[in-house]
Order: sequence, then C-alpha cells, then structure tokens
Amino acid sequence: MAYPGYGAPNAEAPQMTADPLWPYYSRCAGQDGQIDVTELHRALAAANLDGTMDFSEEACRKFIAMLDRDYSGKMGFSEFKELWNAVNSWRKSFSKFDRNRSGTIDASELKSALQELGYSLPDNLITLAIRKFNMKGKSTFPFSDFVSCVLSLRALTDQFRSRDTARNGTAEFNYDDFIQVLMSS
Amino acid sequence: MAYPGYGAPNAEAPQMTADPLWPYYSRCAGQDGQIDVTELHRALAAANLDGTMDFSEEACRKFIAMLDRDYSGKMGFSEFKELWNAVNSWRKSFSKFDRNRSGTIDASELKSALQELGYSLPDNLITLAIRKFNMKGKSTFPFSDFVSCVLSLRALTDQFRSRDTARNGTAEFNYDDFIQVLMSS
Repeated sequence: MAYPGYGAPNAEAPQMTADPLWPYYSRCAGQDGQIDVTELHRALAAANLDGTMDFSEEACRKFIAMLDRDYSGKMGFSEFKELWNAVNSWRKSFSKFDRNRSGTIDASELKSALQELGYSLPDNLITLAIRKFNMKGKSTFPFSDFVSCVLSLRALTDQFRSRDTARNGTAEFNYDDFIQVLMSS
Repeated sequence: MAYPGYGAPNAEAPQMTADPLWPYYSRCAGQDGQIDVTELHRALAAANLDGTMDFSEEACRKFIAMLDRDYSGKMGFSEFKELWNAVNSWRKSFSKFDRNRSGTIDASELKSALQELGYSLPDNLITLAIRKFNMKGKSTFPFSDFVSCVLSLRALTDQFRSRDTARNGTAEFNYDDFIQVLMSS
C-alpha cells in the first residue's frame, strides 16, 4: 500500500490539470513544475493585455514571499491560482477608483478601494500603507503596489483573526509568533 | 512669553550644531535642512570608504520609512544620527561574522550576528528574515539588507516590549494598532 509521497499519485492532480488555468500555468512553469520570480514576471507580463498587469521583478518577489506557504521560494499551481484570482478581482476595484484612468490611485481613492474589499483603515494607516508599499516613494499607488498592499493586509488580517479567539478585536502574541507574522507579511 | 513652536528658539539647536556629525549632516541635507532618499543615498555613498556602506536607493527609502518618526518622509538630524550610529556599530558585528570577507553573510552567520545584538531567533525565523529582507532574492545577506533587517527587528521588539506589560513574553494588540506596528516596520 502506498501513501502520498511514497509513489501514490497526488490525489489533487486530476482536478489541477482539468483547471482552465492549468495550461497557462504549465507553459510558464519551469522544468520543475514550479514558478520562480523570473517566470512569474514573464507570466504576468504576457497576460498584461490592458497594461494594468505591469509588475516589476521586485513586486513578483514580494508576491511569492507572501504566498509561498511551503517556503520553497517558488509558486506551485494553487499559489499561482490564488495570486491570479486575487489580481483579477482587485483589478476591478482598482479601476473603479482610478477615476482619471492614470493607472494610479491617491490616498483617498486607496481608502475607498480597501473599504470595498472589506478593510476599513483610518487615514494614518492609509498614509503608512502608501509609504510602506510604494516602491517608487511617490504619493500615488500603481496597481502592482496595490496588490502587494492588499496581499499583506489580507495575510495580516487572517493572522490577527486566528488569534482573536474571543472575537473582541484584540489578539495576543508571544514574541516568536509576532516576529514570524511580520517576517511573513 | 513664548512657547516652543511660538517663536521660542529650539532648545535642542545649540547641542545639535555642536555635535561632530552636524557639519557632515548639514552638507548633505537639502535647503530644507532635512535629508530625503536621494540625499541619504549620496551621504552614505560618500562615506563608503571601505565599501561596506553600499546602500541602494530602495534600501535608503526603507531606512527613512523605518526611522521617520514625524512622518515627514525625510530624516532630521536626530533620525540621521540614529541611523549613522546604528550602521557603524552593526558594521563591526557584520564584519566579525563575514569570515570569508565576501561582503555577505549566510543564514548561520546571520543567526550569530543577530544573537550578538541581542536577538535570539530560531532557524525558521532566520530563513524568513533572509527571504523578506534580501532584496536580490539570494540566500546570502549583504550589509545593507542586514541593516534593514536589524532596524525592523529593533522597531518591532521595542513595540512588542512596550505592550508586554506583565513582562511574561506575551503582548496584546487591537487590530488598528497591530496593522500600524507592522506597516511601520
């Protein structure tokens, strides 16, 4: 009798290869069947039909670092699909608030876009978010920085919620746990 | 009678200008007497006598974001001096553990260097630290990434300690506070 990892076929494989995103993923992934920073950069650039998917390698490194749950330094299919779905759904929110079609949003538009995604942040945190995620040090936010910001906010919120056991808006951390949450966000 | 901010001379000014670092600071600072990303990049590059102070503009943006306590987006004299002292003291630790003089340290050397500075992190957090702060996605750490890592670790540890009121290694956060601490690190 075989166990997963001892020669048994991966139970998820049939669903994965039937997924409509699988052909594109497997074309972009390297020989090892995984997607590294350069391959992700190429995969998103090739899909950049309307110019909004213009992500730098630095942004791609952040996306992998934030979604890389098995710490392989690369993306498997489920991690790639998670990013792909997130990018496509957040693109709509971003475009809705990029009223002048400049490809960037300002602080108040960022606040509204985050609110629409369920994150109500006070103005001081919006200012901090722009400063932390804006890779060019500007006061407006291109879509790639918006994706980094929401990915980080989503990961932090999930981590906070899992420790807010009493559901009263407070969470307790020990030191190593606290540092790990930061290093992974 | 005048109060600070209502025409009274800044009480700290005489001490500041007598500081040995002040002449260098005021030469590097712009007309506004503050140091922005480009000026910091130039100031550190000019002081880069032994090649270890080679910081990218991206690293300089991170340093300002992490030390910018008045949210001006620039560095005043006290913030610049804090960075200057930190960089010079951490350089000694870094060089001590960069045994092959490659200008980079690996995971085990990073663990020892952080330990010497008072931060005992388990191996999994060392791996996460390299992944988060390594701007080139490599497995070794140049000095500039080491400075970003220690600045962030120091800021987070101070934030954690200030909330560990019972001194038992746990700290409680509400959501906005938690997001603010992580966005400022």
